[in-house]
Amino acid sequence: MRFAAFFFDGASRAFRNRPTFSKLAVILVGGSGGLVAYADAKSEQDIGLLQGTPKKKVVVLGTGWAATSFLRNLDSSKYDVQVISPRNYFAFTPLLPSVTCGTVEARSIIEPVRNIIRKKSGEIKFWEAECFKIDPANKRVHCHRPVTNSSSADEFLVDYDYLVIAIGARANTFNIPGVEENCHFLKEIEDAQKIRRSVMDCFERASLPNLDEEERKKNLHFVIVGGGPTGVEFAAELHDFVSGDLSKLYPSVCDLVKISVIEAGEHILTMNSSCTVDKAAFCIKLLIYLCFSYGMPLFNSQQFCCFATMHVISTMAWLWSLFRFLIGKEKVLGLTKGLLNLQEKFRRDGIDVKTGFKVVKVSHNGITMTANSTGEISVPYGMAVWSTGIGTRPVIVDFMKQIDQGNRRVLATDEWLRVRGCDGVYALGDCATISQRKVMEDISEIFRVADKDNSGTLTAKEIQDVLEDICIRYPQVELYMRSKQMSGIADLLKDSKGDVKKEATELSIEEFKKALADVDSQVKTLPATAQVAAQQGNYLARCFNKLLNNDDPEGPLRIRESGRHRFRPFRYKHLGQFAPLGGEQTAAQLPGDWISIGHSSQWLWYSVYATKQVSWRTRILVISDWTKRIVFGRDSSCI
Amino acid sequence: MRFAAFFFDGASRAFRNRPTFSKLAVILVGGSGGLVAYADAKSEQDIGLLQGTPKKKVVVLGTGWAATSFLRNLDSSKYDVQVISPRNYFAFTPLLPSVTCGTVEARSIIEPVRNIIRKKSGEIKFWEAECFKIDPANKRVHCHRPVTNSSSADEFLVDYDYLVIAIGARANTFNIPGVEENCHFLKEIEDAQKIRRSVMDCFERASLPNLDEEERKKNLHFVIVGGGPTGVEFAAELHDFVSGDLSKLYPSVCDLVKISVIEAGEHILTMNSSCTVDKAAFCIKLLIYLCFSYGMPLFNSQQFCCFATMHVISTMAWLWSLFRFLIGKEKVLGLTKGLLNLQEKFRRDGIDVKTGFKVVKVSHNGITMTANSTGEISVPYGMAVWSTGIGTRPVIVDFMKQIDQGNRRVLATDEWLRVRGCDGVYALGDCATISQRKVMEDISEIFRVADKDNSGTLTAKEIQDVLEDICIRYPQVELYMRSKQMSGIADLLKDSKGDVKKEATELSIEEFKKALADVDSQVKTLPATAQVAAQQGNYLARCFNKLLNNDDPEGPLRIRESGRHRFRPFRYKHLGQFAPLGGEQTAAQLPGDWISIGHSSQWLWYSVYATKQVSWRTRILVISDWTKRIVFGRDSSCI
Repeated sequence: MRFAAFFFDGASRAFRNRPTFSKLAVILVGGSGGLVAYADAKSEQDIGLLQGTPKKKVVVLGTGWAATSFLRNLDSSKYDVQVISPRNYFAFTPLLPSVTCGTVEARSIIEPVRNIIRKKSGEIKFWEAECFKIDPANKRVHCHRPVTNSSSADEFLVDYDYLVIAIGARANTFNIPGVEENCHFLKEIEDAQKIRRSVMDCFERASLPNLDEEERKKNLHFVIVGGGPTGVEFAAELHDFVSGDLSKLYPSVCDLVKISVIEAGEHILTMNSSCTVDKAAFCIKLLIYLCFSYGMPLFNSQQFCCFATMHVISTMAWLWSLFRFLIGKEKVLGLTKGLLNLQEKFRRDGIDVKTGFKVVKVSHNGITMTANSTGEISVPYGMAVWSTGIGTRPVIVDFMKQIDQGNRRVLATDEWLRVRGCDGVYALGDCATISQRKVMEDISEIFRVADKDNSGTLTAKEIQDVLEDICIRYPQVELYMRSKQMSGIADLLKDSKGDVKKEATELSIEEFKKALADVDSQVKTLPATAQVAAQQGNYLARCFNKLLNNDDPEGPLRIRESGRHRFRPFRYKHLGQFAPLGGEQTAAQLPGDWISIGHSSQWLWYSVYATKQVSWRTRILVISDWTKRIVFGRDSSCI
Repeated sequence: MRFAAFFFDGASRAFRNRPTFSKLAVILVGGSGGLVAYADAKSEQDIGLLQGTPKKKVVVLGTGWAATSFLRNLDSSKYDVQVISPRNYFAFTPLLPSVTCGTVEARSIIEPVRNIIRKKSGEIKFWEAECFKIDPANKRVHCHRPVTNSSSADEFLVDYDYLVIAIGARANTFNIPGVEENCHFLKEIEDAQKIRRSVMDCFERASLPNLDEEERKKNLHFVIVGGGPTGVEFAAELHDFVSGDLSKLYPSVCDLVKISVIEAGEHILTMNSSCTVDKAAFCIKLLIYLCFSYGMPLFNSQQFCCFATMHVISTMAWLWSLFRFLIGKEKVLGLTKGLLNLQEKFRRDGIDVKTGFKVVKVSHNGITMTANSTGEISVPYGMAVWSTGIGTRPVIVDFMKQIDQGNRRVLATDEWLRVRGCDGVYALGDCATISQRKVMEDISEIFRVADKDNSGTLTAKEIQDVLEDICIRYPQVELYMRSKQMSGIADLLKDSKGDVKKEATELSIEEFKKALADVDSQVKTLPATAQVAAQQGNYLARCFNKLLNNDDPEGPLRIRESGRHRFRPFRYKHLGQFAPLGGEQTAAQLPGDWISIGHSSQWLWYSVYATKQVSWRTRILVISDWTKRIVFGRDSSCI
C-alpha cells in the first residue's frame, strides 16, 4: 500500500508539472473510478455461518451513498439486517443539478431500495420511516413515519446489535436570517424538482403583461450562493437551459436573464485560473480515451457491461465530433477552439461570478451581501439556490449530547468508522467525520513499540520495521513524507539527525519527536462527497463480512495495547471528480486543483456517470434522458 | 349530412344485431377517430386579411382539450390572440390513470403550450395566470397569479373582443362531507402524481413493523368511487401495478391488498354484461386491423406519419401475439382464451365491484355508504379516489350570476357555442353545455317558415323542402327519426296523418305539432369528454377563421328571423372510446354500449392513443414509457 501511495504521489507530481499527463490521468482515473467504486462487489461466500445462534441485528439508518454501498457489499446472510430511511430510494446525487433543469428526469436517477436489497441473498427488511432518536444505552432506535395521520400508532422501536448511521447531512444556513424561508437547497430529489418548478415560475411571472422592466429583471435574476461543484454545475445547467431551450419559448424576456454565482472564497471550484491545459493535451486525451474505451474490455471481462456502456457513448461522442468536423463547425475534433478556464468561460456566457462576497441576509426583496471592496450591497432576485456548507441533522445533535460529543460540531468516529464514545455504532458519509488520531498524542507509545530491544533509542532499522504500520495507522505520516518529497525513512530522519546513512544511527525520543513534529499538520478532513461515502460503505461492509470469522487480524500494530488491530483503518482513495460547465465543456478534479478540460468533454462525464449508475435501469434511463434532451430539448412545463 | 346520418344509423343498427361487425367498427372508428379529431388541420390560408384596422382581440381561457384544439386550428394571423391559463401545458388526459401508477410518466403526456403556439403563423401570447373574474359588461377579464408573493402587482386586466372560455370543470363532491379532505381526485396531472405517491405511501405504511393485520389491511384498501371510464381504468392500472410490480417488492403484505370500485348505478362503465363478443369476432378484428394499419397509408399520404406510428406498434403487437402463439401461451392469436365481460374480469382479478352503493360520508377512518340491500355500512380504507361527476368552477358560477344564468347548474351556450345572454363570449368543453332549442318552442315559426305560400297548411313537399334545415337546426328531429327507424318524411307524418303517399296531402298546424310532439325527448346533453371538447375547439376555430370574411351564410334557415344562419351549428360525432381493463384487455365503446374486446387488445388502444398525441415529442415519450414499463416494470419510489 505504502509503495503504491508513493507511486501515485510521484505520478501525480509528474502530472502537475506536465499538464499533458494530467489530461490522460483524468480519463484513466475518472473511468476506472466508476469501476472500482461502484461495480457490484461479490461478497465472499466461503465463510461458514454461525448456525443455531440468532443472527446479530444490524440496523442501517439511511439510503444514500454510504448506506447503499454498505448494503450492496454486505453479506446479508450473516446478519439480520433492517434498513430505516424516510426515502425508499437511492438517489444518484451527482446528477441532481441536471434534474433542476430537466436534462435528466428525477425518476431516472433514483433506484428503489427494495430493488437493491431484493437482489441480496439474505432477507433485508426496509422500513420507510425516520429515526428521531438514537438510544445507545438500550441499543435501540426510535422511529416514526415522517407524515403521520394517527401519530401514536406510527411510532416504533427497533433494537440493534450494530447500528450503522448513514443519514447524511442537511443544508447549512449558518444561521443567516432568511435563508431557510427564501432559498432553495439542492440536497434531495424534491429540492431539484422544486427548483425546476421555480425556474419556470420565474419565467412565467416575468412574462406577465403588467410588469415593468425592473420587475421582469428581478424575476429573472437567478442567484446561486456557493461556488462549489454543485453550485457551478447548477449555474452551468441553468445557463444551457436558458440559452438552449427557453430562449425559443420566451423570446421577449430572455435577454433579461441574469445568473449570479456568489462565493465567499477567492475562486469558484477552488480552481486555479492559470491551470488550463494546452491543445496538444486535448489531442492526447482523445487518443488515450479511444484506446481506453475500446481496449479495456479485452483486459477486464468482468466489467464488460460497464465498459460496453462507455463504449457506446464514447463512440457516439467521437462520431459527433467527426460530424461537426465534417460540417466545418469544429476543425480538428475540437482542437481549434482552444481551452478556457472556468471563470473566463462563465464571464463569456454572461454568468456573473462574484468571489469574495459573503451573504449576510436574505429577504423576499433581495440578497444582502458584503465584500471588502464594496461594503454591504443588496441585490433583488427571482430565485436563490443555497448550495454551500452542510449541517448536522437534529437526531445526530441529540445523539452527540448523549455520548459526550455535545461540544463538537459534527459526529466523530475513529479511523475504523466506529463512533467514539459508544459501542457497536458506526457512522459514515456526510453525517460523520473521522477524527484522525494525532501522532504527537501517541508519540511515546510509538517509540515504545518501535524500540523492540528497550534500549531507549531507535535505530533506523527499528523505525523501518514499524514504519509501514505507522503509515497505516497514521496516514498523515505518509502524506507528510509525500508533501516533502521524501523517498524513504532516511529523508524523514534527516532533519532531526542530519544525514542518516548508516543503519546504526540511533534516535532518542526527543529526536524522534522532532522528526515527526510536523506530520500532524497533514491531518485532513475528508470532503463530504458521494465518493467518500461510497468508499466508506464498501469498506464497512467488508469489515462486517469478516467480523464474525476467526481470521487473523489484518490491521496495523496496536500502539497503546498489544497485538494488532482487527482491520486496517479506512483509507480514502480520491478517484477524480467532474463538474460539467455547460455547453460541451467539463471541469475535472485530479488529486489537486480543478482544471477545465476543454470542448466536447461532456461526453467524458456522460460516460463516467452512466457507468457509475447503480442499476441497468437507471443507466438506460439516464442515457435515454440525455438522448431525449438532444432530440427534443428540455421540457418547460410547470409541474 | 342527413343521409350520412341515416347511413350511420343503419350501419350501427346492423352492428348491434351482429356483434361481429361491432368489433370491426371499433377498430375503424377508433382508428380513424384519432385521425379526424386530432390530426393537424391546416387552416385555410386563402382568405385576405383585414389590413390597416387593428386586429380583433381574442382571449382564450384554458389550455385543455377544447382550448388547445381551438388554438391549433385557428388562423392566428387574423386575430390578436391571448391565452390565459394557470397551467402552461396541455395534458393528454386520457392517459392520466396510467400516470397514477407510473405506466407513463407525467411529463410524457404534457406538451408546453408555448411549444404549440410557437408553430402558429401569427404571434399568440400566453399568460400563466388564473382568470378569477369575467366582466362581460366591460369586455375584460381579471387575472392573477395562482401562487403569489406580492399580491397587488400580480393582478392584471385583459380586454377582449371575443372571449373563448374553455377552463374545464372541477371535481364534484356533491357536498358529501369529508370528500374534499380525504379523497384524491383525478382531473389534473398533479392529482395523478399525488395518487402515485399516496399508493406507495400506503404500501410503505402497511409494511411497518408495529402494525397488526387489521391496520395493514386498512392501509392497503384502495377505494375508487365512481365506475366511469376513469375509475375503471384507475382500478385496472392499480391492479396491474400491484400484481405485476409491487408483489415482488412487498411480498409480505401483497396478499392484503384490496381494490374496491363503488358505483351508485347498476353497472360500471354502464356496460351491459350480456354484450360480449364471440370468438369469431376477435379473429375478424385481427384481420381487419391488419388490413387497416397496413393498407391505409397507401390511401392517405397526409396522415402517413400518424399511421406509421400505429403501424410500428401494431406490428409489434402481432409479433408479440405470434411469439406467444409459438411458445404455446396463446393458441390461435388470443382466440382460445375467450372473451370476458368486465365485471367478471374484475371479480377474477379480485377487484370488488360494489354497484348500487351511494357514498354518504367520508372520514379519516372510513367511507360510509348506503345501499337498498345492506343499509348504511362503513369500510376502513387506505386511499380513496373520487372520480364521479364534474362541478362548475367558481369563476363560472360568478359569471353565470352576471348574465342571468344564476339559477342554472352549468353555463349554457346556444348551438353555435355562444354563451346565452351575452355577446362575443363562447364557451366550450366541460365548463359549458349546449342548451339545444326545443322544436316545440319554435313550432309556430317553423310552420310559418315552411308554409311558403301562406296557405295555412303544409304539403309534404313543403316539409321536405325545409326538413334538411330543420334537421340541422334541431338535431333531435333526426335522432327521433333514427330511433323510430323512419326512413323519410312519409314515416314522420304517418302517425299524425295516416299514410302519406300523395304529395298533395296537407297538414294543419295542429297535425304538424302532433307529428313532432315527441322529438324533443331526443335532446341529449353531450358527455364531458376530451373528444367533445376537441371537436368543439376545432369547430369554433373554423368559425373564427371564416368570421371576418364576407362569405355566404352556410347555416340553416333562421326560424325566428329572416335569412340563414352564418354557420352550421356544432354537431358532435362520436368516434368511440377506449378503457383499458388491465392485463392485456381493453373495453371499447361504440355508439351504444361498452363492450369488452378481449385479449391482446391493449395494443389497439396503445396505437390509437399514440396516434392521438399532440406532438411527436409526447408520442415518442409515451411509447418509450410503455417500452420502459415492459422492460423494467413501474417505478416504486415515493417521489
